[in-house]
Formats: sequence, structure tokens, C-alpha cells
Amino acid sequence: MKNYQSMSKEELQSEYDILLSKYNEMKQQGLSLDMSRGKPAPEQLDLAMPMLDILTGNEMMNTENGFDTRNYGILDGIPEAKKLFADMLELKPENILVGGNSSLNMMYDSVARSMSFGVMGSTPWNKLEKVKFLCPVPGYDRHFAICELFGIEMINIPMDNKGPNMDMVEELVANDDSIKGIWCVPKYSNPSGITYSAEVVKRFGALKPKANDFRIYWDNAYVVHDLTETPDELVNIYEECKKNSNEDMVFEFASTSKISFSGAGIAVMGASVDNLNFIRKHLTIQTIGFDKMNQLRHVKYYKDINGIKEHMKKHKEIIAPKFDAVINALNTNIAPYGIATYETPNGGYFISFNTMSGCAKRVGQLCKDAGLVMTPSGATFPYGNDPDDSNIRIAPTYPSIEELNTAMELFCYCVKIATIEKLLK
Amino acid sequence: MKNYQSMSKEELQSEYDILLSKYNEMKQQGLSLDMSRGKPAPEQLDLAMPMLDILTGNEMMNTENGFDTRNYGILDGIPEAKKLFADMLELKPENILVGGNSSLNMMYDSVARSMSFGVMGSTPWNKLEKVKFLCPVPGYDRHFAICELFGIEMINIPMDNKGPNMDMVEELVANDDSIKGIWCVPKYSNPSGITYSAEVVKRFGALKPKANDFRIYWDNAYVVHDLTETPDELVNIYEECKKNSNEDMVFEFASTSKISFSGAGIAVMGASVDNLNFIRKHLTIQTIGFDKMNQLRHVKYYKDINGIKEHMKKHKEIIAPKFDAVINALNTNIAPYGIATYETPNGGYFISFNTMSGCAKRVGQLCKDAGLVMTPSGATFPYGNDPDDSNIRIAPTYPSIEELNTAMELFCYCVKIATIEKLLK
Repeated sequence: MKNYQSMSKEELQSEYDILLSKYNEMKQQGLSLDMSRGKPAPEQLDLAMPMLDILTGNEMMNTENGFDTRNYGILDGIPEAKKLFADMLELKPENILVGGNSSLNMMYDSVARSMSFGVMGSTPWNKLEKVKFLCPVPGYDRHFAICELFGIEMINIPMDNKGPNMDMVEELVANDDSIKGIWCVPKYSNPSGITYSAEVVKRFGALKPKANDFRIYWDNAYVVHDLTETPDELVNIYEECKKNSNEDMVFEFASTSKISFSGAGIAVMGASVDNLNFIRKHLTIQTIGFDKMNQLRHVKYYKDINGIKEHMKKHKEIIAPKFDAVINALNTNIAPYGIATYETPNGGYFISFNTMSGCAKRVGQLCKDAGLVMTPSGATFPYGNDPDDSNIRIAPTYPSIEELNTAMELFCYCVKIATIEKLLK
Repeated sequence: MKNYQSMSKEELQSEYDILLSKYNEMKQQGLSLDMSRGKPAPEQLDLAMPMLDILTGNEMMNTENGFDTRNYGILDGIPEAKKLFADMLELKPENILVGGNSSLNMMYDSVARSMSFGVMGSTPWNKLEKVKFLCPVPGYDRHFAICELFGIEMINIPMDNKGPNMDMVEELVANDDSIKGIWCVPKYSNPSGITYSAEVVKRFGALKPKANDFRIYWDNAYVVHDLTETPDELVNIYEECKKNSNEDMVFEFASTSKISFSGAGIAVMGASVDNLNFIRKHLTIQTIGFDKMNQLRHVKYYKDINGIKEHMKKHKEIIAPKFDAVINALNTNIAPYGIATYETPNGGYFISFNTMSGCAKRVGQLCKDAGLVMTPSGATFPYGNDPDDSNIRIAPTYPSIEELNTAMELFCYCVKIATIEKLLK
């Protein structure tokens, strides 16, 4: 086995012919495989089914302070749900706003609110000449889509395995008051799987933005989503902000979409009391309040943060072997050839894979032609534009292990084919 | 018993003294009564409790077309929920968007979307010098609050027991392209309880607005909320619009907040396919989708529109006697004195009461001082300003009959006291 880059043209061509015949063999099978979306597998969703039987009898329907969750009232979350999610995010209940079932919707609303009404009294962003967000890349396409919809200019920030390039972040936010936000998935990042280092989080907390309505959008989507016995630790961003008298600077987000049910979970936002007071003023006009019975259902089922952590161990038992299957395939079939890089994450939902420059789109096309759907290449970058055409997000949770093994066999052929095509050009 | 307006000053003063002593007697009792909010009573919420037991077993969790409601996917409602709510609104499933638990949130989002992105390709409203909405009065305070938040100028449109003054509506929308909407609660209107007549609805369908992004905001909140054996009939607005090739002109809204659970119902929007296509383009960026398990729970429980109608009969059994108690108290203690007007509604959640001009605030204050909370006077008008200081919204559903009887005794004293104070001035 040889590194492709040290092979002669003839060797590469002969390798290519072999790979292409194997690829074509698989193509004949009429496969229909999907590694494109961070969707829980049905077995994961089964785990939370007992939650559906937990609310029975009228006496069960009241909050701990005697409020009937079935009726109108309570805008920002029942007290016991605030407590549960405060523990999950290591905040106080007063810093928690419990929402509907979609944390993406809470992020969208936060940006939309800022566009129309500003942030804690600042000028509404739609009155400004220019609004910009920093986007650590690769990142989550739905964050970028919100910015694009509102015409917010996105600036790529390179990431390594410690997090975003903080020199760039510090420099940019300190000097440009049109920069109003940065999208972060700080733990088991989507897609790279890395967790921001303590130093990175501390530097985030100490940012000195020129714009007083700059906010860190801290999407802690994978806060309890460990996959190994040596999970990553994320430093508490709110505490770091507080140390620098910066506690208004961060909006945290999370949800139970990948804890209980993706289609019927609970979303939550964490922020300073002053931020939440400003938000509540608008929220009381926006809605009659969110689904309190589903909040109660979640609290009565999980009871406390330990209940959530125990539940997440069962998720791990189901999906960790899937991550192993992908990593093993890559270790065996890609690593020896020196043609790509990838991280082995300790949690989250993704494995981020980097081909040689200029190969990702071709890999996606080859996969698609043979019946394997991958996340569209480029999707992990603002405007769908990966300048290196290199990053591919692999989502191993939904398919079965058997499907994954087939998918990865095919994927590795595609990577090799695309790489040799590139090298032979 | 004499009409107050034909009484001498001395007779009024003597009546006043008697009333005041009765009022003070009640005030001593330290009452704590609330007729301010259209909240279902606990007994009404109990009706839907079996719904919580309906989703059991993994095989129950799929939609009719085999989609797992527990997972991600399906942006705008599961097919069977679209069908159910289409039947409720007399629309086709293709005209239905199923949302979260709050129809107010869908209305807010509709206005917010129009502000930022326009309506089916029109100029975003926040780029316009001026945006105006027509507001039939008295109306629903939360509609008006949305306009006020976005700086949309509100124009009062008088209502009678057939609906809004359509001469005014036609004239205004035909000549002013800054008028972009009108808020309507067409059936069992909040608060007046009247239903728009067939002629009014036909005239709505035939409107010729100058602004092509004008929309009728048709909040059909009480579409199945009958209280008598002779319910009102509302003509189908969408059909009327279609007859005039105006089917893009209406946004319909409804919810199960007063059918199943106020804190955990299902909200729905009805509109033309072209409107919904425009909305879906933004919605797919706004959210991962709404709670599909709660949609499925509702459909499996009610089965079809007849299931909803049967369920509503049970609501009627609980709340019709409460409306009767209020109306009886008014017929006995107010009508003979010729000092106020009110409608006896065939459905909905409210009784609208009009004092003599300039008395409503004083009535509210007297009630409050004696422990009875009413909807703040003025709330049923844009900017909280009832130019006649006359309208009081009575919400009889939440208190028990016993509490209602006490509350209405007190309320009638307050009305009489305020009226005599006015007459003696």
C-alpha cells in the first residue's frame, strides 16, 4: 500500500482502473443510501417512547408552583423546565428561556428580532448600512442560511482542532462595528466534531467588540452528546463572559431534538437577565407562549440532568458503533494513502472529512451517481462555497451498521477515484 | 324600576347611595374574581385528557404515508393534520400550513415576514414610508399589539352586528396603497360575539385593493365554537375571494387552543398555494419544522372534523350556562335601566358590553378596587384607546357559575354607580 502522492502516473492509472471497476460493480447494485443528515436512527427515538405515557391524570398537569400547564399563561417556560435546562447549560434558571421545539427557530427569531428591533436598545440592524457575522468554517449550513436570508454579510473564520482562529476574531470584532455576531457550535462542532479549547472559550469571554450589540451565538447543540469514555469538556462561556463584565455578550442555544424526539423536542435559550428582559417584551407580543405540556412531559420523564445523562448513554450505545464503523473504514481505506484528513470526534453527530483540494464536489457526484446521498459539498460554508472544495460532512447516525459499511466502502472508492483524477490532471 | 335617564337628580342620588353601600359591602368580602381573559375552565381542559394516551407503541408514530413523526422532516404539517384542518376551515389540504401551538405566533410571523421580505415578491414593508392596517373595533388587543410593535399605523373601522363598515373598508383599500391588511375575527368576533353577515363576507371577497400585497387577516379563532342550537353561519371567505380571482388576498388562521389545550394545541394557517409557496421558502430557513407528534396526537384523537364537532358540544355544555348567567344578570340588572348595550352571542368566548360614553374606565376601576379583574378598558381598541370609553369585554368561561354570579352582581353595581356619577356630573 502506497501513498498516492508518491505513485507514478502509470501506477495511479492502474489503481484507477481497478477502483473504477469496483465502483461500477457497486453502482450496478442500485443502492439507496443516505449519510447526509444528522438524523437520529429509529432505535434512538424508541428510547424516549415511555415519555409519552408520563402525563396521566389531571393532577399531573400542574407545575411545581401549581400552574395548570394545559391552559394559557407562562410565556418563557415552566419553572421546572427552566431548572432542568439551566443545569444542562450550567446556568441559573433566571438565565433560561424555554421555547418551542426548534432551537433553530429561536436563533432565527433572535436574528429577526435584532433586524427589526435591535439588541437591548441598539439601532435595529435593518436601519444600518451593513451588518456582518463571523462564520467559523466549516460550520452549520442552517446558521449561514439565516444570515443569507437577511442579507447579513458572512466572513469565513478558519477553524483548527482548538476552535476558530481567535486572533482573527479578536481583531475583526474590535475594529468593525458592523460585525454583530459569530456562529459557534462549541462542543462536538458541526461538522468538525472538535470542542473549543479552554483558551479559545476564555478568549471568547474576553472579546472587546466595537459593536455593543455584538452577540456570540453559542449553539450548544451537542452539550450532552458524548460518544466515548473520554468526553470533551467545554468551559462555561457565560462564566467567562461574566469575569470580563461581558455577560450580555452571549446567546446560548440548545434543544432536546437529539435527546428525546427530533420532531417534538424542547428548545432553549440561555442569556443574561437583561437580554431576556428585552426579548420577553417582544415575545409577549409574538406568541401566547410555547407548549408547556411538552415541557412538563420532558421534566417528569428525565427528572433532572442526571436523567438526561443516563438517557444519553443509551444513545451512545446505539450510535458509537456507527461512528466506529466510519472511522475504521477511513483508517483502513483512506489513511494509508495520505489523501485526506479527518477528526475522530468524542461526541456529536458528524465526522468531518477533508479531501485534497478540489475533490469534494467530484466525490459527492460519484457517490450520488451510485446511490449514496452525502451532504452537498460546499454546504458547510457560507453561500455554499467551500473555497478549497475539500470538506465533506459524514452523518453516520441514521443508517444501520450494515448500510454504513456498504456506504463507506463506496465512499472510499469515490474519494480515491476523485483523488487520482485530480493527480492525473 | 326606572330608566336612569328619566330620573331626577334626587332620585339618582338616593339610588347611588343604596348602590354604594351594596358595593362597599361586597368590597369588604375581599373577593378575588377574574373575568378578564378568554381562558377555558379546567373542566374544559379535562375533556381532551384522553388525547394524552393515544400515542402508544412505535407503530403508532408514523403518518399515513409512512413518515416517522418523531424524527426530523415535514416542514408544513403531516398530511392527515392538513386534511383535518382543511375540513375545519372548508379549504383543501394544499391550502393548509400546520404550525406550532400558537396561531398568534403565525400571525406575528406573517406580519414580520412581510416587514422583512414583502408578500409574494412585493417590496418589504420596512422599506416603505408608511404601512397601515384597518382595525375593525372593538377588536382583539393582541392583533393591535403586533401592528404597534412594527410601527404599522392602525385605522379604526366601526363594527355593527353585521361586521365592519364595508363602505369604509372598500373606499380605504381602493385608494390607499399603504393599507396592507385588515384584522378580522369573522365568527363570534372577539369581543363583540357577532358573526360577519353573508353580504359582508361577499364584499370582503370582492375587495379591489390598490396594494397588491394587501391581505385580509381572517382570524377564524372561533370557527367551531358554537354555544346555542342556532349557531351562526359564516360564508367561506376563500371561495368568495376565488369568485373574484382574489384567492391570494386572504390569510386564514385558526387553532385548537380552545378545542384541546390552550397550552399545547395546534395552530394552522390557510392560504392560496402561491402564498404558501412563498411562505415555505422562508419557513424552511426559520425552523426545522413544528411538533409533528402533537399533530398526530390531535388527528388520532379527533379522527375527523365530526370528532372535533362532537368534542365542541361537550365544551358547550360546560360554558353555555356561564354565558347564560352573565346574560341573565345583565337582562335583570342592566337592561331595564337603559344604561348600556350588549349582544347575546351564539358562540365564541366573549360578551361585549358598552356603557354610556365615558364610563368604562371608571367601571373597571370600581371592579378592580373590589377584587374583580376585567379586561383593561380600552384594550379592545388600537393603542388601548377607546374614543368613547365605553367598551368592556366580559370573559365568562374560566370562573365557576357561583363565582360568575358574584362577579356579575358586583359588575352591575359598578356599572350603575359609574353611570350615575356620569349623569350627576
